[in-house]
Amino acid sequence: MPHPLAPVRLGLIGAGRIGTSHARIIAERVPGAVLAAVADARPGAAAALAEPYGAAAYDDLQALLDAPDVDAVVITASSTAHCELIVAAAGAGKPVFCEKPASMTLVEMDRALAAVDAAGVTLQVGFNRRFDAGFAAAHAAIADGAVGQVQLMRSLTRDPGLANPAAVPPWTIFTQTLIHDFDALLWLNPGASPVEVYATADALVAPELKDTGLLDTAVVVITFDDGARAVAEASFSAAYGYDVRAEVFGSGGMVTVGDGARSSLRTFTGSGAAYDTARGDVELMIDSYTAELVELVAAVREGRAPSVTGRDARRALAVALACIASVQAHGPVAVTEAQA
Amino acid sequence: MPHPLAPVRLGLIGAGRIGTSHARIIAERVPGAVLAAVADARPGAAAALAEPYGAAAYDDLQALLDAPDVDAVVITASSTAHCELIVAAAGAGKPVFCEKPASMTLVEMDRALAAVDAAGVTLQVGFNRRFDAGFAAAHAAIADGAVGQVQLMRSLTRDPGLANPAAVPPWTIFTQTLIHDFDALLWLNPGASPVEVYATADALVAPELKDTGLLDTAVVVITFDDGARAVAEASFSAAYGYDVRAEVFGSGGMVTVGDGARSSLRTFTGSGAAYDTARGDVELMIDSYTAELVELVAAVREGRAPSVTGRDARRALAVALACIASVQAHGPVAVTEAQA
Amino acid sequence: MPHPLAPVRLGLIGAGRIGTSHARIIAERVPGAVLAAVADARPGAAAALAEPYGAAAYDDLQALLDAPDVDAVVITASSTAHCELIVAAAGAGKPVFCEKPASMTLVEMDRALAAVDAAGVTLQVGFNRRFDAGFAAAHAAIADGAVGQVQLMRSLTRDPGLANPAAVPPWTIFTQTLIHDFDALLWLNPGASPVEVYATADALVAPELKDTGLLDTAVVVITFDDGARAVAEASFSAAYGYDVRAEVFGSGGMVTVGDGARSSLRTFTGSGAAYDTARGDVELMIDSYTAELVELVAAVREGRAPSVTGRDARRALAVALACIASVQAHGPVAVTEAQA
Amino acid sequence: MPHPLAPVRLGLIGAGRIGTSHARIIAERVPGAVLAAVADARPGAAAALAEPYGAAAYDDLQALLDAPDVDAVVITASSTAHCELIVAAAGAGKPVFCEKPASMTLVEMDRALAAVDAAGVTLQVGFNRRFDAGFAAAHAAIADGAVGQVQLMRSLTRDPGLANPAAVPPWTIFTQTLIHDFDALLWLNPGASPVEVYATADALVAPELKDTGLLDTAVVVITFDDGARAVAEASFSAAYGYDVRAEVFGSGGMVTVGDGARSSLRTFTGSGAAYDTARGDVELMIDSYTAELVELVAAVREGRAPSVTGRDARRALAVALACIASVQAHGPVAVTEAQA
Repeated sequence: MPHPLAPVRLGLIGAGRIGTSHARIIAERVPGAVLAAVADARPGAAAALAEPYGAAAYDDLQALLDAPDVDAVVITASSTAHCELIVAAAGAGKPVFCEKPASMTLVEMDRALAAVDAAGVTLQVGFNRRFDAGFAAAHAAIADGAVGQVQLMRSLTRDPGLANPAAVPPWTIFTQTLIHDFDALLWLNPGASPVEVYATADALVAPELKDTGLLDTAVVVITFDDGARAVAEASFSAAYGYDVRAEVFGSGGMVTVGDGARSSLRTFTGSGAAYDTARGDVELMIDSYTAELVELVAAVREGRAPSVTGRDARRALAVALACIASVQAHGPVAVTEAQA
Repeated sequence: MPHPLAPVRLGLIGAGRIGTSHARIIAERVPGAVLAAVADARPGAAAALAEPYGAAAYDDLQALLDAPDVDAVVITASSTAHCELIVAAAGAGKPVFCEKPASMTLVEMDRALAAVDAAGVTLQVGFNRRFDAGFAAAHAAIADGAVGQVQLMRSLTRDPGLANPAAVPPWTIFTQTLIHDFDALLWLNPGASPVEVYATADALVAPELKDTGLLDTAVVVITFDDGARAVAEASFSAAYGYDVRAEVFGSGGMVTVGDGARSSLRTFTGSGAAYDTARGDVELMIDSYTAELVELVAAVREGRAPSVTGRDARRALAVALACIASVQAHGPVAVTEAQA
Repeated sequence: MPHPLAPVRLGLIGAGRIGTSHARIIAERVPGAVLAAVADARPGAAAALAEPYGAAAYDDLQALLDAPDVDAVVITASSTAHCELIVAAAGAGKPVFCEKPASMTLVEMDRALAAVDAAGVTLQVGFNRRFDAGFAAAHAAIADGAVGQVQLMRSLTRDPGLANPAAVPPWTIFTQTLIHDFDALLWLNPGASPVEVYATADALVAPELKDTGLLDTAVVVITFDDGARAVAEASFSAAYGYDVRAEVFGSGGMVTVGDGARSSLRTFTGSGAAYDTARGDVELMIDSYTAELVELVAAVREGRAPSVTGRDARRALAVALACIASVQAHGPVAVTEAQA
Repeated sequence: MPHPLAPVRLGLIGAGRIGTSHARIIAERVPGAVLAAVADARPGAAAALAEPYGAAAYDDLQALLDAPDVDAVVITASSTAHCELIVAAAGAGKPVFCEKPASMTLVEMDRALAAVDAAGVTLQVGFNRRFDAGFAAAHAAIADGAVGQVQLMRSLTRDPGLANPAAVPPWTIFTQTLIHDFDALLWLNPGASPVEVYATADALVAPELKDTGLLDTAVVVITFDDGARAVAEASFSAAYGYDVRAEVFGSGGMVTVGDGARSSLRTFTGSGAAYDTARGDVELMIDSYTAELVELVAAVREGRAPSVTGRDARRALAVALACIASVQAHGPVAVTEAQA
């Protein structure tokens, strides 16, 4: 298959934790992809990540964008830089993959969308759950009518723990974590739009950080225009590992996805039965991280839009921002208001 | 065991669906219990139910309460009559088992509680989930510290369908259905009290009944004074059967309960793997319905309070009433206000 | 239901472990049954068991058989006494329920069958697995064609441990334990007959008892006349509890049954996921023990043959005896030879 | 990681079904591997497979072995050619990966082992189950003492169907299919050796092929020198897909592995609960096929023996051959005899 096709050369911007993981996936698991370049403004960071893969390293981000041997850009920088980097990549005429959130505000998001539209480049956003075998099968089953009219939904994320909670921005649980759940819920109820959210959040894991504003536990109820209600829920401290699940219930039945088992091993002893659970996001979701980058390569090659775009990112971001407004208002808020 | 002990003679008031089920359970599955009498104000209803069991039949409810061969009363009448019947049974000096909700308002509830206290009789309320093996094991595990500090909870009820939705009172989903979930959530987070609820509800199953006020789909978020958030969720139309589940997540881990499998049979064919699901509440919960009546007999015999009382019923009712207030207010309401 | 029907008064012979369990089940869980009498030749044993249930006690077994207030007999005595007791009960004109094995040899078995036939009484044998919800659903699914032509089968029994291994007769694993599996396999492949068995067995749990002949671990392969092969497997020492499972595979698919979970509780902690397993046969199989006695009462009342009879017991016994012959011959033996 | 390391260039011999699958895995999923060459004696077969990957194609197998840009050889040719090809590859001084069975007789096997020993090259054999996450976790758990002393084992393979059964050699079920189970059982009971096998087999899937000698259904009992008994079981026609499972029971507990679910999706409808099953060996086992080739590359790079070798292949082959002898003898046979 790959032969007549030249490899797609990817330039990665941002050599942090997720950038390091994506670099390895690109190099080792994505057929037809080459990790051509890494850029990071922190001196030496790009080189450290690039070197073992034989990729070029840049401290100057624009230099990577301008490099003629970079066919597409993968943005894994700090979230606050995403909008500017999308705009810059679009300016360089390069297709873009950007980690979520693609922007921090709707104004920013619209600027990024306008830039990619003006440049005629594509923008894929890192909602990897859509590429998980279980979530994808759920989506297909729902499209097939397996649950009938959607009435009740649930999506949750439980992280085994933040490396440095004190350094985490206050609203992270909505903009970085639950945004995955919001996208999943919007995607699994196709044709419907969120009209209202109620969000409540607290610092239960690290109460001492509540004064800094860090919220580590949250519950959200979304009301859709078709009447469906969705619950999204997150915690930054799951003792048993990384936990991502979803449930969609409707007039014709229910689908559930998410299974944290590390392998098919089951152990039965004097203590009863047991199995081990996946402990990190990369372990749990490695195949979906791979599949979204396979989609990037395919979309770039075929010159087509990826299956998850900046428009999807905007919808999920609007819900996340409405959640923040809801917590501040201590009550439900319309999603349309938040979008204004 | 039973020999030196005389059987406990139960008088059942209310020969409807749940009364019929309880009568059969008393007669067939509760050691040491005798279905001594059935009363129902509808002419002939008591006789039809009583006859096969050799029980006495009364159209006059007070006559059953006054019968000297009735040791304790099981109230399975219409919910709106519960308070009066508890008061009357207390007046007759009989221990009482009453189906949920034990009353429709807090004023009524307090009247019922005062009556049983004054009479020195016991009042057990039909929160049968506490007697389900899975729920009981969850409660024990939580008490044992299995989840650490409770942070996120979930409880749900999905009914396969109402026999006659048009006849169902508007707020039934909160007062009759979710009240089970509220009790379960309060019981599984011992030591904590609900301080606020947010409820949203709709007529998604039978939109044509929305004008009559019947709500068939609801989602509730409860905030506890320990910071824990609980989600309760209900629907009146589950295509796959009766579905009762709970999940409690905390600083040390998670427990889940509820497994709708009809038996251990698993079938693998060209269509994949399958198993059948329990289709009705009695099928799914038969062992817990039995166990709560075993507890009634034990408590009556031992002259002690049952393990679930009218105080528990009041707490769950306060949450249900706060939910109604929340739907009406379109926003979160304090539970204490609702209790006033 | 029970009213116009007089209760069926059961006389239990044998006040050992299983007799004690059956007595309690009869008294507490079988509607329409009364534990009328208990007999045991060991002085005082009958009285100790009978007293709390208000049943009559006999040290003389024949006296129980002759008692006019005993409608049917439940034999839970030592296996070696089963044949004589069936013959005696038939002589007394009483319907019989006998624990497995109904006899120790085919000659004995034929004598028992002849006696009940001559007396015109019914004989039910204690193959309780047939009454387990999972096994019953498997049987129905197979009859329904769910697996097509049966090709490969499996049945296993793992006991958590013998109370007094030194007192256990040598071939117990075949005649007492695997006989359940043999009946299940014959029942789940209706229309087919076993033609050959290969059995291998060893003393792995208690090697020090190998000289006494006690075999505690066994594997059997049965070849049926339709070509299907079945594996039966047993151990007397399962660290995790009582384990009973079956699997039937055929041209159209597979069914599996057996699920040792104690309840629906699942626990997730830093050690992973866990659930507790049933620890004893009565705990695991209580509902099937109850259901077989419900069947006894129904068959006695309706004057019909029970759904599992002495003919079934003879077929399973023939397989068990062929297994012993196979171990002794160190090779496969024809089942017909063993039956001669 | 890969940078300072040159890629390992693999030459594949045999462009059939499994060769085609391995080629794709090498090209797309094995970091550090390059599919450098493909050879197949059938005209055009090598070129068709090689072309899309940009690999060299040879109709002359020796030419591939002699190619200086081939670092190691992957043999996926017909089983009857394996021995000769291993010998030839060893003669060319190339490390070898060979699909199972590595030879068809012990004489051949010993010749192959002698050749690789003499040449000082390594030989890895395609027992991919060892690289499955579940099987690997089971092995680790057993080594860790999770089951105590091994007493009862089970391993099974159910294939969804042979493409052309009429072309399949008679003993294939033992030499090609169950050989996986034999290796798994030997590996999961480390330190023990098989001393006797009893095998029974039949043509139940395609009875019309029985005259050609094709056996499509088999059951094997292996007795180990530590007393453990293992059952291996295979069928060539599983309606529900590819099914690979194992179970190891011992004095301290049990482990099970194998879970045919296609994804984490569970569907609940009016028909009950369902999930889809993996339908082919490549779908079910793709990660283990990948991992064994990752191990090949690592072993070649590090100049070390792979974790599964020709010695392991010889042990499994001895069991397979003993099974054939057992079927022919219609009784148990010693494994040592078969090894002679």
